[in-house]
Amino acid sequence: MRETGVPKEAGHAHHKEQPLYIIKTGGTIIDDQDTLHSFLEDFSAIRGKKILVHDGGKIATAIGEKLGIASEYIDGRRITNDATIDLVTMVYAGLINKKIVATLQSLKCNAVGLTGADANVLPAKKRPVKSIDYGWVGDVNPDNINPAIWRLFLDNSIVPVVAPLTHDRFGHILNTNADTIAAVLSTCLSKLYHVKLVFCFEKDGVLQDINDERSSLTQLKAKAYQELAKNKKLFAGILPKIDNAFNALNSGVQEVVIGNSNSLLQLVKGKSGTKIIS
Amino acid sequence: MRETGVPKEAGHAHHKEQPLYIIKTGGTIIDDQDTLHSFLEDFSAIRGKKILVHDGGKIATAIGEKLGIASEYIDGRRITNDATIDLVTMVYAGLINKKIVATLQSLKCNAVGLTGADANVLPAKKRPVKSIDYGWVGDVNPDNINPAIWRLFLDNSIVPVVAPLTHDRFGHILNTNADTIAAVLSTCLSKLYHVKLVFCFEKDGVLQDINDERSSLTQLKAKAYQELAKNKKLFAGILPKIDNAFNALNSGVQEVVIGNSNSLLQLVKGKSGTKIIS
Repeated sequence: MRETGVPKEAGHAHHKEQPLYIIKTGGTIIDDQDTLHSFLEDFSAIRGKKILVHDGGKIATAIGEKLGIASEYIDGRRITNDATIDLVTMVYAGLINKKIVATLQSLKCNAVGLTGADANVLPAKKRPVKSIDYGWVGDVNPDNINPAIWRLFLDNSIVPVVAPLTHDRFGHILNTNADTIAAVLSTCLSKLYHVKLVFCFEKDGVLQDINDERSSLTQLKAKAYQELAKNKKLFAGILPKIDNAFNALNSGVQEVVIGNSNSLLQLVKGKSGTKIIS
Repeated sequence: MRETGVPKEAGHAHHKEQPLYIIKTGGTIIDDQDTLHSFLEDFSAIRGKKILVHDGGKIATAIGEKLGIASEYIDGRRITNDATIDLVTMVYAGLINKKIVATLQSLKCNAVGLTGADANVLPAKKRPVKSIDYGWVGDVNPDNINPAIWRLFLDNSIVPVVAPLTHDRFGHILNTNADTIAAVLSTCLSKLYHVKLVFCFEKDGVLQDINDERSSLTQLKAKAYQELAKNKKLFAGILPKIDNAFNALNSGVQEVVIGNSNSLLQLVKGKSGTKIIS
């Protein structure tokens, strides 16, 4: 752990009962201003302590193309080279994050925009080069996060809005998956608060039948998930999200739900989405 | 004043003796990685409470040209239209601010990057349209700033790094001059701390003779300034900086100095630069 002015303390019992909502949003919602605004209205209406983690939407790709920064792939995996990390730092931490923060401020929600470098809230390690060099990509470990800095914000009614960027503590910003950040941060803060982790996306939850939008499960147990995944019943894109959800749950996060961005307040109340159960 | 979880309190006597360094940097230093790194090494070596305010350098213009966003001028004044505010939000709050923050973190300085929208640290008013519509430009008033939010960071050894952007509290990011932000913020915080405001730029201080780089004044009084300005002895670009310096001094800021970015530690000690005296 890195020295900081904020002392690292053990969890306080009186906090542990307090709910903390950690909401992950992203995908198409980031790219559509009206949908985003209505989502942020819902988010600002959640009472109590809360954190918003957002991904980058598709704006970065569009701006990258104009700047002549082509997405680079090796074996189908996206690589974060020098030009790309600058691009996503601009778009994620600048354009998207600050628009969300300014909008939340207009909704009387006292948001602060953060990357992992800010106040060292999310130290990470550059992913080691094995078969593939992913470039400036960071992996986060809940044990390396100082919960006291998060509590400083939360206990002062400040609402962190987290861009999907971390840092290596050697001066480099790193690209990190937003679902993973939400899961890892939830794990860390589950020692201090009763964490309700909500993954928002375009669908109503985990679909039992990939071709039926109304087949969303109300709950998903580990065993049922393994079976659905084995039988290729699930949309491939949702697998990492569900894996992150189970990882969080198995690491101490108290509640995890996956559901539709349009139903945030219902998701928060447990009245919508797929509840992940170990 | 806007409601916030951080109570607005009167200044505490025990704080008022504590020095707070507010350093403004910018210009060519932002655009040159090596110079910027060496400046940030000096900044991180300043002991005690400190804030860094940076401007946007010339990177935004270069990126804007690639994106096809031309700078718009009316009567020689730069206008911040929709495309331009998005551009500078990306570049100032994203690229530049986060690179500075990540670098400071690598130097063991626990920096947090902020725009005025973040935690509502710098509420502003969109400049009213009179003869010119400047677009998304914000004017800041020290009386509207809540010093408690700044103290929350400073008293927890967190070092704010401020991009030259504010917000109107209606959801819009606004472009605000970094010298003005430094002066206004210094005025506000001079009620809580003994503020030493340092304006860094490319020259050793206020030059008595515009053609002699070694003619930097050790001090400048208001009367001498008026005379130098009247006789057009001064470089026009420095006039707003000196005006901001005198405004800060006349509004209660304890010490103000203008000098060379390369001599930050000497400036802080009062051994370099032009000291502004009322």
